[in-house]
Amino acid sequence: MHAASLSDIQGALERIAPFVHCTPVMTCRTMDALSGRPLHFKCESMQRTGSFKLRGATNAVLRLPDDRAARGVVTHSSGNHGQALALAARLRGIPCTVVMPHDSARVKKDAVRSHGATIVECEPNAAARAAAAERVVADTGATLIPPFDHPHIIAGQGTVALEFLEQCPGLGAVIVPIGGGGLISGIAIAMKALRPDLRVIAAEPLNAGDAAIAKRTGRIEPVPPTRTIADGLRTPLGELTLPVVRDLVDEVITVTEDEIIAAMRLVWERMKIVIEPSSAVGVAVAVQESFRAREPVPTGVVLCGGNVDLDGLPWMRGG
Amino acid sequence: MHAASLSDIQGALERIAPFVHCTPVMTCRTMDALSGRPLHFKCESMQRTGSFKLRGATNAVLRLPDDRAARGVVTHSSGNHGQALALAARLRGIPCTVVMPHDSARVKKDAVRSHGATIVECEPNAAARAAAAERVVADTGATLIPPFDHPHIIAGQGTVALEFLEQCPGLGAVIVPIGGGGLISGIAIAMKALRPDLRVIAAEPLNAGDAAIAKRTGRIEPVPPTRTIADGLRTPLGELTLPVVRDLVDEVITVTEDEIIAAMRLVWERMKIVIEPSSAVGVAVAVQESFRAREPVPTGVVLCGGNVDLDGLPWMRGG
Repeated sequence: MHAASLSDIQGALERIAPFVHCTPVMTCRTMDALSGRPLHFKCESMQRTGSFKLRGATNAVLRLPDDRAARGVVTHSSGNHGQALALAARLRGIPCTVVMPHDSARVKKDAVRSHGATIVECEPNAAARAAAAERVVADTGATLIPPFDHPHIIAGQGTVALEFLEQCPGLGAVIVPIGGGGLISGIAIAMKALRPDLRVIAAEPLNAGDAAIAKRTGRIEPVPPTRTIADGLRTPLGELTLPVVRDLVDEVITVTEDEIIAAMRLVWERMKIVIEPSSAVGVAVAVQESFRAREPVPTGVVLCGGNVDLDGLPWMRGG
Repeated sequence: MHAASLSDIQGALERIAPFVHCTPVMTCRTMDALSGRPLHFKCESMQRTGSFKLRGATNAVLRLPDDRAARGVVTHSSGNHGQALALAARLRGIPCTVVMPHDSARVKKDAVRSHGATIVECEPNAAARAAAAERVVADTGATLIPPFDHPHIIAGQGTVALEFLEQCPGLGAVIVPIGGGGLISGIAIAMKALRPDLRVIAAEPLNAGDAAIAKRTGRIEPVPPTRTIADGLRTPLGELTLPVVRDLVDEVITVTEDEIIAAMRLVWERMKIVIEPSSAVGVAVAVQESFRAREPVPTGVVLCGGNVDLDGLPWMRGG
């Protein structure tokens, strides 16, 4: 038994559909030529709040009983999950608090505030963030909504797979970026239930390669602090996502930082869409030399997010 | 009588449809809120070669009789029309020569070459470009395909309007960037024929404001060399486009360079799509303070292109 089932994911889609976009699927001849197969890009980068995170956050918020929901929700994830939870809470009309390091980028604070959430600032370290979030829970009775290792989050993220299979019934494989593993867990559960033959491939930065190791050893090993430009994928797998990755993900393919940056630029230039580095990790796998040699089945690539700092693009650094 | 008719444009669409994308129409709640009306963005930025120019170029190439086509085509437009003509020629399997200043950006030369065209380099001034193109015509018998002031080009660009009205039948107005006027002429002819009530608005950089003047005076006045970031819109109107703009375009609205840059960044950040400054000129009109005060009819915005130099983004300058 995994943390969520196909029917949990189907239920989540019904629950969240009024609030999230069914994101478009794009194709591009240049990308097909580079990958040696038809690629289908699921643009969660165009989801509301700019990432797939809204799906899980909305499902988790809507699953709260009324009395508990009324006391609000809290998170100490200052990235895409923080923005997503802020909007999910507003959509239900309940309070939301996002704990953020005081040195967070202004654009991130503005995004959270624009959805009506309260920001609590803290020192920029994991212990301070957890402590600040616990204080909010103690003071207000709010519910902590974790960014990935939670059944309702996993079920919500899995809704990407239901839409994707509906939009592209002929997929033979799917490439999904992996960080904490919430997105790929939901997708793998749904896809393997509906299409056991469909290959589910995790794409991971070599510099944050804990999932590749976990897939080999079956355990979450402590890894050194990670230095990857794909900031959405720095988190290691969790207790609930590890078993799903172990049992249902067919393989983990890693890519270098240079491959990530080149893939990101390629998509901006040729597909004319803005994706964040985490999305580019999946693209980098699809255009890898060794990937070209594989059987050329129609392959889905999940572009997980599009939130980038336009003042600090990677190809500008040192330029 | 204008240079093209509705039936010319309908014929063009039938002719070019196998070769060009029916580009998607996107919407965005944030943009609607900023404009105070529903906006529908026609993404010619996602057209093959990254701009609407492929439509006119393909129509012009396909209209050539076989014997003339066999001798090839030539242009001295080194921007989006050059790329478009190169691909259009390849699609028909005929030679194409693009005259480019020797100091053109490498990315532009690469794009033209990638479509199999021959590049002839010349000094970076208008006289040298025209002379080089004339030499190619004299030497090879190739046909010069101008970038906008030609009936087949205007008819080809007008196909944007036929698709747009099919995709969004409820439009009450449309905003189209104006440079040489080929795009808006084709669109205005089609839209005023099909929907005389639909308001056609030209969007122009204040720094290249010849169309605004021509609309008032009915004449093409010499304007000083223009300095606008919207490099696709520096060209003044031509002999064929002037009467269309005079008769069928309802008004010309100008925007400043700061408005263009802000609108471009807004679209990248909120819509997660890559547009070039010329596209942003139309967006800037849609979110202008004075535009908000108008009757809030559903309004189309043509995003004419997505070709940008990712190494020189305007908000980076001097940063």
